[in-house]
Amino acid sequence: MKKRHERTIYLEDKPRHEALQECLTFIDQQKKTTEVLPVAEAMGRVTATPIFAGVSNPHYHASAMDGIAVEANRTQTAHESRPLHLKNGADFAYVDTGHAIPSPFNAVIMIEQVNEAGDDVLEIIEPAVPWQHIRPIGEDITYGEMLLPQGHQIRPVDAGALLGAQVLDVEVKQKPKVAIYPSGNELIQPDQKAEPGKLIEFNGTIFSGMVESWGGIPMLKPIVRDDREKIRQALIEGTTEADIVLINAGSSAGSRDYTKDVIEELGEVWTHGIATRPGKPVIIGNVNDTIVMGVPGYPVSAYFVMEWFVEPMIHAWNGQPTPVKPVMNVIAGRRMTSNMGSEDFVRVHIGKVGDQYIANPLSRSASVTMSLVKADGIVTIPPEHLGVEQGDLVEARLLKPKEQLDLTTLFSGSHDLSIDILSSVMKESDGVSSITPSHTGSLAGLIALQRGEAHIAGIHLLDPATGEYNDSYIRKWLKDLDIIKLPFLRRSQGLIVPAGNPEHIEGIEDVTREGIHYINRQKGAGTRVLFDHLLKKHEISPDQLEGYRREMYTHLSVAAEVMVDHHSCGMGIYSAAKAVGADFIPVGDEQYDLIMTKTFYESERGQKLYQALRSEEFKHKVESLGGYSVNENVEPVAIEN
Amino acid sequence: MKKRHERTIYLEDKPRHEALQECLTFIDQQKKTTEVLPVAEAMGRVTATPIFAGVSNPHYHASAMDGIAVEANRTQTAHESRPLHLKNGADFAYVDTGHAIPSPFNAVIMIEQVNEAGDDVLEIIEPAVPWQHIRPIGEDITYGEMLLPQGHQIRPVDAGALLGAQVLDVEVKQKPKVAIYPSGNELIQPDQKAEPGKLIEFNGTIFSGMVESWGGIPMLKPIVRDDREKIRQALIEGTTEADIVLINAGSSAGSRDYTKDVIEELGEVWTHGIATRPGKPVIIGNVNDTIVMGVPGYPVSAYFVMEWFVEPMIHAWNGQPTPVKPVMNVIAGRRMTSNMGSEDFVRVHIGKVGDQYIANPLSRSASVTMSLVKADGIVTIPPEHLGVEQGDLVEARLLKPKEQLDLTTLFSGSHDLSIDILSSVMKESDGVSSITPSHTGSLAGLIALQRGEAHIAGIHLLDPATGEYNDSYIRKWLKDLDIIKLPFLRRSQGLIVPAGNPEHIEGIEDVTREGIHYINRQKGAGTRVLFDHLLKKHEISPDQLEGYRREMYTHLSVAAEVMVDHHSCGMGIYSAAKAVGADFIPVGDEQYDLIMTKTFYESERGQKLYQALRSEEFKHKVESLGGYSVNENVEPVAIEN
Repeated sequence: MKKRHERTIYLEDKPRHEALQECLTFIDQQKKTTEVLPVAEAMGRVTATPIFAGVSNPHYHASAMDGIAVEANRTQTAHESRPLHLKNGADFAYVDTGHAIPSPFNAVIMIEQVNEAGDDVLEIIEPAVPWQHIRPIGEDITYGEMLLPQGHQIRPVDAGALLGAQVLDVEVKQKPKVAIYPSGNELIQPDQKAEPGKLIEFNGTIFSGMVESWGGIPMLKPIVRDDREKIRQALIEGTTEADIVLINAGSSAGSRDYTKDVIEELGEVWTHGIATRPGKPVIIGNVNDTIVMGVPGYPVSAYFVMEWFVEPMIHAWNGQPTPVKPVMNVIAGRRMTSNMGSEDFVRVHIGKVGDQYIANPLSRSASVTMSLVKADGIVTIPPEHLGVEQGDLVEARLLKPKEQLDLTTLFSGSHDLSIDILSSVMKESDGVSSITPSHTGSLAGLIALQRGEAHIAGIHLLDPATGEYNDSYIRKWLKDLDIIKLPFLRRSQGLIVPAGNPEHIEGIEDVTREGIHYINRQKGAGTRVLFDHLLKKHEISPDQLEGYRREMYTHLSVAAEVMVDHHSCGMGIYSAAKAVGADFIPVGDEQYDLIMTKTFYESERGQKLYQALRSEEFKHKVESLGGYSVNENVEPVAIEN
Repeated sequence: MKKRHERTIYLEDKPRHEALQECLTFIDQQKKTTEVLPVAEAMGRVTATPIFAGVSNPHYHASAMDGIAVEANRTQTAHESRPLHLKNGADFAYVDTGHAIPSPFNAVIMIEQVNEAGDDVLEIIEPAVPWQHIRPIGEDITYGEMLLPQGHQIRPVDAGALLGAQVLDVEVKQKPKVAIYPSGNELIQPDQKAEPGKLIEFNGTIFSGMVESWGGIPMLKPIVRDDREKIRQALIEGTTEADIVLINAGSSAGSRDYTKDVIEELGEVWTHGIATRPGKPVIIGNVNDTIVMGVPGYPVSAYFVMEWFVEPMIHAWNGQPTPVKPVMNVIAGRRMTSNMGSEDFVRVHIGKVGDQYIANPLSRSASVTMSLVKADGIVTIPPEHLGVEQGDLVEARLLKPKEQLDLTTLFSGSHDLSIDILSSVMKESDGVSSITPSHTGSLAGLIALQRGEAHIAGIHLLDPATGEYNDSYIRKWLKDLDIIKLPFLRRSQGLIVPAGNPEHIEGIEDVTREGIHYINRQKGAGTRVLFDHLLKKHEISPDQLEGYRREMYTHLSVAAEVMVDHHSCGMGIYSAAKAVGADFIPVGDEQYDLIMTKTFYESERGQKLYQALRSEEFKHKVESLGGYSVNENVEPVAIEN
């Protein structure tokens, strides 16, 4: 067995801009080829040469108006007091816009300025100026004129101008081919059965979509197994067929080393490790006069590495600038820590609360693809900073248009599936309105509302003293605010156990049994408050429970954990149990309310949300999840403090 | 014959936003269909339903590190002073990142924190916390979680998340089909021979490209002739096959009427004429429960009508917002007049001179496609304004990224083909640098430089008193500025005559002959100065010349006019004659210089231009045009005033 702790030492981490500059210098010197395409197929492509007009447009003296063509010098006597009569055929000809001016005519009089004066006879009361209302030859396009320069990306209107000049084919740059090799023994294709230890390969599809959107040709290859010889073959094949070769690292330390070793064997390694988080374990070099990159395996690292290196390389290949990404100043809603010495890229939710844009970090883990799917923006923390404090003004790169962020409602509080449904119903209505949820738990939701970091909070907080939900907490935590409560939902809470209930759990008292693993929720979550209340009622100490200290943040996480451990059990809502196919032992119904300030409720966003909440579509979709009862005619309840 | 002056009266022109709102209300109520696609093919498409995860990712307890899996409760005694020995197989198992944690282990210790202590024996000096370095089930994607809402446009990273959750197919909205019917008796396809009176059809290709870029499916149909029955058939076919039908108006007044009449016969007309310039003669209605539009024939009018109506309709169909177009404040470099009562859309060049962005109008004619190809932006003049005065601050919608405008050099002055070549060479070098030319004539170029409306001027001004070029004019017109002159070009001036020289013109004295049409250049053009000087020398009065008062703005325009009139002749440079295949009678060589301020010359843009001017590529390309001699080692000449 290999001594696993003899690890590859990374070369000193390089700043990513330095690593990129080496790539761009290399790309700049590479030979590029061109191809000739029919104009209609060349849209979006980049001209390889300047393009000159082959004909003029118009290529004849064309009438610019509907009217009559005349000889200007024969109209000089026309006057209001002495109208001039013109005979069709001899003195004038009818012309429509675009018609050729018949010889010997050299001016056009608009039809509105002539009067009938008999059969085929017209009268005019004003002389014509030579060449009036006649388009000069080449008014639009002049024969020999340069229509498009070299290095110009052809838009639809450019294609029209080319055809108008009878340029039918055009020489354009060939797009760079990017070969993509997923590698790793643990990888399976998305349609294969996912056994434990097997990871679904999907980075290749992300890479392909990115490459295509940037103007390259993706070549997605089959999965390469962790084998030095196989990786060697892939590199040789890729560098023969493509202009840029990507090996997406397998998870094993071995496969990452193979990529570096083989590049060194066949060519040279320029960069091994860059000073970023995520994205650090990148390998860049050249084999066969072609750039090869070892892209990290975790999807978030991979995504950034693609944007930092592959996007500018493709644009440089095509001779185009990389589009500048839109940025905006935002206020950090929470602290974001960072390591000194590396650039840190934090995915954030962004929402407009009052006049400020608030950014809250999503999962920092490089393995969480959904942190990119859900992100509104990316905050970069420079290498010389230790992080960002709450309230700091920072720059975020936007992943959504600013106009869309203005219409986003920030949710904080207890996780419930109905919030996603509500967001989807709103989004469907206009394509932009939506809810951005932070699953912080009920109590944290109220605090976020109080701090102005969220627009709405979803809570289900039992007051053990009264047995009632929510109101006492609202009065305590939001005491200086005029609050609106929308009591829209009742839901069934209970114990979630594996399908078939193998441990025969029937109630709270069973979770203390030896060998039962309890899956707990985080402090401040309504479900945690309920569970702790039930433990107290049953006089059970948390120390009697195995797993009490490990915390999950959503109902679905609890349900998903339960499903892979036959001896486990957790507390959550019925719909989460149903979603994963777990069994459910009901404990009772609870009230889940949406809380917001009166100001937000009365705003356009607030009213849109309220309408969606009362819609048939919402009620139907939520109730079909199971375990829910949606209040059909939810009325706002004012809680004035 | 039809009485051509009995014209259709336009319904009162409607504000375009009102006309659009009617279309969007109609689109909103139309039934949309969906289709199911494999995820990789669904990128860019819009989800028709919310999409939920079919599995968790990870779907098993996966190691987050390379290291060893242990039972946490069996490591509690480990301490620096009392290292704990673990045996491979019994007490631990090696795991790499992503590996499943084998039973009964429940924690991972990083490989960096273990030491070898014998064959298959490791030692640790710190206890493990349960679940440390183990990814929870569903850390990335939780079974049952909503991955994407309804109405979401799928990006590459979304596609990855779907596959990661083993969602292989996805239900998306069907794109709207847009049928495009070019109509008109005068239209020919771009590959047909262009006889006088025949116009090349290219709007259909522009429309197709636009529709596709906005997310619709273009269906470009063959040309429909100006015939009421044929237009009727097209409308019936189109409204059966497509979701939006466009009839691109023929040039005849008749065909424009047919479209309106037939829509009225088969359905209803909502809008006939909107209050804009260009774009006014638009017809909108519905036939067969499908939107039909008569789009104006002139390319510029058509382009705007497509953007105003078809773009938002396609986005609305797909349930997406229309992207907000970037705008910027600019200073009007020249006056732009407008009609009261209609919105006016002026295509402008934009360049940064000093700290200001200056906008200069291009051709206002709706038939000049190249005004769109060349435009950097569009200035909108509202209906209640009579225009914009020089120096006014106005808002321009940008057609190019602002960063690109910052790198654009504004040229004013005498037209020369070498300026386009120079721009193309610069653009090829970095994909963004370029020259935006205004063909104003030499003298106007000097005045633009003096006013700070251009960066460089191209001039060839003969001083009749000395027989020398340019310097006396620079001293007179730019007297307060430190000027750099780049004397890079000598070129051959002469008389341009039709191929074969049918009128046997041999010199200036021949242009006064009866029946010769002279094609003149505008006042202030260097060529005009030269020609007027030659007339004087030969004691010819301008009144002796037919055509002297009609003015062309470029050498190529003169050459193009000459080629369609056997009895004509004009003055211009050899390369223009050569470009169109005309004959050329040389009159003499002249010096063409580039003039700029010292400040601009020393700027980054100035130095880039200077380098391009000295390149082998530029010299080669210009000299191959013919009639040019490029100064190989052009040195800047300082003209201090």
